[in-house]
Amino acid sequence: MKIKLFIVMMLMSSTIMGQRLLTLEDVMSGGSNWYNLQPENKFTQWWGNVPVETTADEVRELVTGKHLFTVDRLNEIAGEKVATSGHNILLPYGKQTIAQVRNGKRRVQIDWKEGRVVWSQEIPEGAEHQDFNLKSKHLAYTIKGNLFVMNADGKAQQVSTDGSTDGSDNIVYGRSVHRDEFGIFKGTFWSPDGQKLAFYRMDQSMVSGYPQVDISQRIAAVTMDKYPMAGEKSHEVSVGIYDVATQKTTWLKLVGEKDDYHTNLSWAPDGKTLYIFELNRDQNHMRLVAYNTETGAVEKQLLEERDEKYVEPMNGLAFLPWDSSKALMQSRRDGFNHLYLLDIATGKTEQVTYGEYEVQELVGFNTKHKCAIYRSNAIDPRTSCLFSLNLEKPRCTLLGADEGVHSATLSEDGTMALDRYSSPTVPRSINLISTESLLSHRPRPNRVVNILTAKDPWQEQGYKIPEITSGSIKAADGTTDLYYRMVKPVDFDSTKCYPTIVYVYGGPHAHNIDARWHWCLRGWEAYMATKGYLLFILDNRGSEWRGRDFEQVTFRHLGNEEMKDQMEGVKFLKSLPYVDKDRMGVHGWSFGGFMTTNLMLTYPDVFKVGVAGGPVIDWKYYEVMYGERYMDTPQQNPEGYKGSSLLEKAGNLKGRLQIIFGYNDPTCVPQHTLSFLRACEDAGTQPDLFTYPGGGHNMFGRDQVHLHERISRYFDDYLK
Amino acid sequence: MKIKLFIVMMLMSSTIMGQRLLTLEDVMSGGSNWYNLQPENKFTQWWGNVPVETTADEVRELVTGKHLFTVDRLNEIAGEKVATSGHNILLPYGKQTIAQVRNGKRRVQIDWKEGRVVWSQEIPEGAEHQDFNLKSKHLAYTIKGNLFVMNADGKAQQVSTDGSTDGSDNIVYGRSVHRDEFGIFKGTFWSPDGQKLAFYRMDQSMVSGYPQVDISQRIAAVTMDKYPMAGEKSHEVSVGIYDVATQKTTWLKLVGEKDDYHTNLSWAPDGKTLYIFELNRDQNHMRLVAYNTETGAVEKQLLEERDEKYVEPMNGLAFLPWDSSKALMQSRRDGFNHLYLLDIATGKTEQVTYGEYEVQELVGFNTKHKCAIYRSNAIDPRTSCLFSLNLEKPRCTLLGADEGVHSATLSEDGTMALDRYSSPTVPRSINLISTESLLSHRPRPNRVVNILTAKDPWQEQGYKIPEITSGSIKAADGTTDLYYRMVKPVDFDSTKCYPTIVYVYGGPHAHNIDARWHWCLRGWEAYMATKGYLLFILDNRGSEWRGRDFEQVTFRHLGNEEMKDQMEGVKFLKSLPYVDKDRMGVHGWSFGGFMTTNLMLTYPDVFKVGVAGGPVIDWKYYEVMYGERYMDTPQQNPEGYKGSSLLEKAGNLKGRLQIIFGYNDPTCVPQHTLSFLRACEDAGTQPDLFTYPGGGHNMFGRDQVHLHERISRYFDDYLK
Repeated sequence: MKIKLFIVMMLMSSTIMGQRLLTLEDVMSGGSNWYNLQPENKFTQWWGNVPVETTADEVRELVTGKHLFTVDRLNEIAGEKVATSGHNILLPYGKQTIAQVRNGKRRVQIDWKEGRVVWSQEIPEGAEHQDFNLKSKHLAYTIKGNLFVMNADGKAQQVSTDGSTDGSDNIVYGRSVHRDEFGIFKGTFWSPDGQKLAFYRMDQSMVSGYPQVDISQRIAAVTMDKYPMAGEKSHEVSVGIYDVATQKTTWLKLVGEKDDYHTNLSWAPDGKTLYIFELNRDQNHMRLVAYNTETGAVEKQLLEERDEKYVEPMNGLAFLPWDSSKALMQSRRDGFNHLYLLDIATGKTEQVTYGEYEVQELVGFNTKHKCAIYRSNAIDPRTSCLFSLNLEKPRCTLLGADEGVHSATLSEDGTMALDRYSSPTVPRSINLISTESLLSHRPRPNRVVNILTAKDPWQEQGYKIPEITSGSIKAADGTTDLYYRMVKPVDFDSTKCYPTIVYVYGGPHAHNIDARWHWCLRGWEAYMATKGYLLFILDNRGSEWRGRDFEQVTFRHLGNEEMKDQMEGVKFLKSLPYVDKDRMGVHGWSFGGFMTTNLMLTYPDVFKVGVAGGPVIDWKYYEVMYGERYMDTPQQNPEGYKGSSLLEKAGNLKGRLQIIFGYNDPTCVPQHTLSFLRACEDAGTQPDLFTYPGGGHNMFGRDQVHLHERISRYFDDYLK
Repeated sequence: MKIKLFIVMMLMSSTIMGQRLLTLEDVMSGGSNWYNLQPENKFTQWWGNVPVETTADEVRELVTGKHLFTVDRLNEIAGEKVATSGHNILLPYGKQTIAQVRNGKRRVQIDWKEGRVVWSQEIPEGAEHQDFNLKSKHLAYTIKGNLFVMNADGKAQQVSTDGSTDGSDNIVYGRSVHRDEFGIFKGTFWSPDGQKLAFYRMDQSMVSGYPQVDISQRIAAVTMDKYPMAGEKSHEVSVGIYDVATQKTTWLKLVGEKDDYHTNLSWAPDGKTLYIFELNRDQNHMRLVAYNTETGAVEKQLLEERDEKYVEPMNGLAFLPWDSSKALMQSRRDGFNHLYLLDIATGKTEQVTYGEYEVQELVGFNTKHKCAIYRSNAIDPRTSCLFSLNLEKPRCTLLGADEGVHSATLSEDGTMALDRYSSPTVPRSINLISTESLLSHRPRPNRVVNILTAKDPWQEQGYKIPEITSGSIKAADGTTDLYYRMVKPVDFDSTKCYPTIVYVYGGPHAHNIDARWHWCLRGWEAYMATKGYLLFILDNRGSEWRGRDFEQVTFRHLGNEEMKDQMEGVKFLKSLPYVDKDRMGVHGWSFGGFMTTNLMLTYPDVFKVGVAGGPVIDWKYYEVMYGERYMDTPQQNPEGYKGSSLLEKAGNLKGRLQIIFGYNDPTCVPQHTLSFLRACEDAGTQPDLFTYPGGGHNMFGRDQVHLHERISRYFDDYLK
């Protein structure tokens, strides 16, 4: 009886589970059914030390489920529609029953308990790059090239007057600078008390504009997009400190050259000093400089770092909440990214994490127990787990699960964390955990309240799921472990021979394989497996989170070592009986488009079909900050630029190569692809081409579905 | 014995003739072997009334073969390399032993008999649009936007000062205006004695610029190419008369609107009057106006023509050499383009050619016998034969062969012509003929001296030549004859079924089928026939040389009637047992790209594969002059624009369609193709794409070979 039921259930599950075939509408984020195939989720945030959950209609306490208020109630109190969803509501002040919302016109704080608006501020028309300080309630924002502050009383102050208003972007204030490299993603930085604003001013008048053509106008129109190309004139950045009370700006007396990089601005807790990680244009000499925010003068240089290849400061100072004489900083100086305790007075540093792994994020501090909470891949290079390091004992504790890839937000006092992760077999898990460090260097999961464990939505809805595995091979250097993901065709039969596609990125600052759900599978791979392809993805040397030397092996000759490693992957594939050696394809986007094109041209007898998206073709067309870090300038490194240029190899094309680019790609500008076409035309070879007018470096929404239909069709046409 | 030899010769010829297969290198003008497969040629010109032949090294009399001089001798006399080939030498003055040559720096006249330079003139650096008058030896030229004259004594005079020198082309002098429509191809016009210069001034400051991006620069650069789009602001043209002696300009007091068209400037023989065919922007009202060249005032309006659809003046006045009170003009007012004798004093016209055929060119006059020499397709719509019309008797005589397509140049007195023609079976024939009109309206070939009859170079070199035929079918109106060319695959076997490609142009001002060599076969068709395709080319209604109504049937809805006719062609093809109905493709460029795309979208179940080059996609992106003639403005004809827009049909795409365009196409600007891509992306259809960076509306040289390899491969991939 028991056995019988078991068989019936098996039959049922195999009927329900394995029959539906994934389509692009299912697996692409722009697809019509994508949302239905996402693992269940909960939207969470901290209200002081209380974890809360937001829904479209409501905000409630997370653990107890206690109702706090509805969105409708908030709008009723406000007397207008200020909130459209619970997800856009902030509970910014612990213990106070205040919700903060904004619509296009106002930012409002509402006491939901008292049922009244306690504060509100108009948002000026056209305000961009809004930076609101919760403490002072001052708002910094930009309009065109200029910077403004709206103070807590709703009075606008114009910080700058010489910002460009003619669309030229020659002078811009309050925006991210240095093309978002070096960990920079914004241009305004409030002091801890919110009374002073550090901001960037960027002079781009000496930078060439790249012509971007908008064909959606009645008559195609052009915008000259400031784009400093490798070896060409770069922009010049300065830093000001604006005092809201006096309405005066103090300019920092920056040292160094005009085209130096000024990164990771960090306020001292008392607001009297601003620390800047400064880097020369050659990117091999970093100085941490302290500036007096009253006078703008240099107080001192705390430390410097040099590297034969490059130094890349990505993180600012994180002052210890319990001791403002010390801050944590991050450095790769020992070969891996680690935490260092900096003594502000002496500039001396003490390394506090060690090992052949990388600290990936300093999440914050547990003030009560004097712990730093961070993520690292210490357990396995593919994982990103949470750790708590007691900075006084020292003790280090694993927080949460010892598998998967985590992200966490801390409660106000840092003693608790909302930890979200997925692992190859866990689609999503959300847990409330304690962040105290218990044991010295002995990782062990901390106390956990499970908030959500999502089921596999693909399995639940009866889709055929390909087998997805991860493993490692040796790099071309013979010693380094490289990790891969392999996706086998659905209904895999090891006696058959399958067309095989290598998906590749291969560049720095990214990786493709980690211990997320399905080993970080991309939806398109599942789709292609459904169509009968085998997919293989390998993170070669040069990619992310494997340490300095792993990354820097590519220095001055991007592409070479990366391709050698990918060919080790191909060697491995060729050793598998079910891989069809005569039907191998390759696909990648951006740096992966560069790799794809390069592989097609360098190994024309290996790859029959390639699809390269938004590729770099010649690094001289790439920008100064990222490009020169890895390649130096074309003037300094002419052989490297020539050797890595795909224009030189255009005549090698033998298989079918389709290049696809966003017609208005501001990152890998169209000159890359178009120059390659010209080179192929001159060399008598025949690549294929497609473009998305209005598209940028990546395609989104329905374009993403269209794009992947296109990519898939190309392999169907020529590889299947 | 005789029979035996015959068999041997047959065997030999079939061995030699039919074995080699044509490649793109053979049939494309940019191909490496193209030149070797061209019919034999002779380069000829008139030295007064003496026909001469030029070679690379020498100039000699044509009939007698008498040597005149060598290129080396000319350079020796000049003391520098002024001539590089005999083909660039002019013998401008009958009876005088003077040769005129120019290099980049000088224009020189050399008496080859006396062995001395008799005159020379420096060519200013950067001089463009050079217009040299042989009588006065004054040279008109432009530099940037301004107009200059270098007089016979080598003194430069600046005619204009307000021409744009900043690259904006806002104001330009001395260039062709109205985008080369209405028979305009230059911007300076010397008076008969060469002492006065009529010239155009064009104000384009109100015209939008189309951004053309040059990716061959270090950093892609943009040029704003003045391009007045249909319904948008057009340019404004004025006409000046510059007197070289007084160095003064008189501006004509033009009547009408600012955006009228001022076409076909014609000097009176005495230089006192300038005649202009003026057309309103709506292009339905033409006025022939006489201006006094001394005062600029209107002398009188000689005549006007109106049409419900459009009037299109393409030719100026040709004054009778023997009677300056009369001139020949051309008009389609009776439904076909014919010659009219205009009485200058009264403005009265007398029609002198009649019939349901078109006068295609007024070649000139035989002054001695008072004949007008012209080309027409009176014998067969596909031919263009030479005729001489005695304007006093009247008598009309066929000159030269009664077949083929001719072109002719007349001797100084017009009594003789060098007549070049080819016919479906004659690759090239050059004949010296008399131009006297002998018989009234009874065409008969005139006396002929054969200069050259070229053999078939394809046959001679042993290539397999496909069978090429021409015939007619009825248009969709059921009555009109339409002519086609059919190219059968080599080794044609009527029991087999062949993939078939319709090549199409279909627009006004052009035709594809005429009675030239191989019925005007395009090299690519021969190549595709070699690869086993059947090609079919049909001149639909709307195309050239078939009269006003044949052309104007397309008015306000370009594409519709043209496609109906092409589908009659398809109906005919489908009636042929050797045409594979399931493997039909279509290919065309420019208007033919519009037709190809339109056919693919309108008959998605008929055409499996299409290749559209430089297509018009929406007539609102085309220019004012050509576009509004056929479509009126988008404001006047919104239904017509919508109905003919391929953006509206983007979702219909079913088969494989590749669009190819010159990345810098100044004629069908890239906005056409790119807007179509966007529309397809939004509609979820998948066209293919290619582009030639730096390429214009058509590809030349090696790009042409590359392009046709590409086009052919596409059909091989999806139609074969």
